[in-house]
Amino acid sequence: MTDLARFGVSIDDRLLKRFDDLIAEKGYGNRSEAIRDLIRNALVEDQWTRGDEETVGTVTLVYNHHTRDLSDKLTEHQHSHHDAIVSTLHVHLDAHNCLEVVVVKGKAREVKRMADELIGTKGVKHGKLVTSTTGEDLL
Amino acid sequence: MTDLARFGVSIDDRLLKRFDDLIAEKGYGNRSEAIRDLIRNALVEDQWTRGDEETVGTVTLVYNHHTRDLSDKLTEHQHSHHDAIVSTLHVHLDAHNCLEVVVVKGKAREVKRMADELIGTKGVKHGKLVTSTTGEDLL
Amino acid sequence: MTDLARFGVSIDDRLLKRFDDLIAEKGYGNRSEAIRDLIRNALVEDQWTRGDEETVGTVTLVYNHHTRDLSDKLTEHQHSHHDAIVSTLHVHLDAHNCLEVVVVKGKAREVKRMADELIGTKGVKHGKLVTSTTGEDLL
Amino acid sequence: MTDLARFGVSIDDRLLKRFDDLIAEKGYGNRSEAIRDLIRNALVEDQWTRGDEETVGTVTLVYNHHTRDLSDKLTEHQHSHHDAIVSTLHVHLDAHNCLEVVVVKGKAREVKRMADELIGTKGVKHGKLVTSTTGEDLL
Repeated sequence: MTDLARFGVSIDDRLLKRFDDLIAEKGYGNRSEAIRDLIRNALVEDQWTRGDEETVGTVTLVYNHHTRDLSDKLTEHQHSHHDAIVSTLHVHLDAHNCLEVVVVKGKAREVKRMADELIGTKGVKHGKLVTSTTGEDLL
Repeated sequence: MTDLARFGVSIDDRLLKRFDDLIAEKGYGNRSEAIRDLIRNALVEDQWTRGDEETVGTVTLVYNHHTRDLSDKLTEHQHSHHDAIVSTLHVHLDAHNCLEVVVVKGKAREVKRMADELIGTKGVKHGKLVTSTTGEDLL
Repeated sequence: MTDLARFGVSIDDRLLKRFDDLIAEKGYGNRSEAIRDLIRNALVEDQWTRGDEETVGTVTLVYNHHTRDLSDKLTEHQHSHHDAIVSTLHVHLDAHNCLEVVVVKGKAREVKRMADELIGTKGVKHGKLVTSTTGEDLL
Repeated sequence: MTDLARFGVSIDDRLLKRFDDLIAEKGYGNRSEAIRDLIRNALVEDQWTRGDEETVGTVTLVYNHHTRDLSDKLTEHQHSHHDAIVSTLHVHLDAHNCLEVVVVKGKAREVKRMADELIGTKGVKHGKLVTSTTGEDLL
């Protein structure tokens, strides 16, 4: 059970008009939703600058599966961190290229380090970390 | 079969020393690897600023699965774009929170629009798009 | 004269508590201020993805003023775009290094192109563009 | 006096072709220049994640100078940190809007905190920090 609060925002009406246009275009149903998303983004961003908070990240990797030993290395790397790596999604993009998304849970700084290692593995063409959240306390 | 080229980089030796420290820390095996990664990142970034190139993105969403109709809405949304949505990974973070990663393929601007829609769905707590690549021509 | 509007945001009270902590730490005086800043950031970000809207950017450059002809080249470059370049700030960081901030006004995509040229000038050690705003309609 | 090093990069020739196109478009004179810029960016980015290294940032602020006491507050704030604030550039964008760029020197985490305070000042419409560098050791 959670309690709902309500607060008022005073704002110039022209600024509000532009915001309404933007959120309509982005497909939001109402202002509260859009504001809550802005607030959550600010909180998650702040969380990742601290480093020692429990977070979740996803690492997106694109690589050529013909690269010698690469799949094995990535699999091995993930197994040696099995407590932190929650799950992995593998997509065959074409005859050569694979996309892999690795979901990692842990302290922000450890998730970052693990992402660096995965992205830096020889043969990975492109990699990026999304710094997301466990969702707790982000109601 | 691809042909390997080789080019030389002239650089102040102290700058090179600092770069070597950085890539050792990031876990790269050698300089060429690290340089190729910097080059690929720059190319992928440029690709996404154009808008009409064929790309791949991953959308990471965190939401509470108790939110009325949210899973249904997300599933429905994905089915109505089944040609663009390649695959989805779902993780149960705790009793309430889910993390979903959606892999989307298409023109950069369409992938962005679809990510906006998914992230803006009522009940999604946090969402972010990774602008990645099909891997083609990124050898 | 501008008219002030007011709208209500409904939000879980624990999420609001965390937001209040964050904005206190960031030094905001009240919630409306913080929310308006989040809204303006979202609007400015959107403006820069379009490309053809009138905007203002600042380009921060760090370079060694001993680099042959660099100052001349940067000055010349700026003069050949004198209609777009509003002003320049120069700081002597130490005996060798200069920091220069160039304020550029124009359509988003032209400001970006000019920033690329300045940052890419031989001898510039580091450069970054801030995508800001003319402030119009951002009351 | 600095010593020049040289190292070789092996790379697929199609990837190199695409990189050459990109840097030509960005206005670079040769590959070494472009590679050094990528390396310096990676180093500066890394420096800012540490927090305790000596750095330089620029804070771009847009505000309405009619906002009661705002200029005074910004000036006062800057004077109370006169050891960290190196210089300020002020531009009159139109009859109402001002753009101010504040150059701040200090440890990464202090520069960030000061930027937060300036950006969070009531009446500032838009603000952003560029995390740059003193240029030392970035030859």
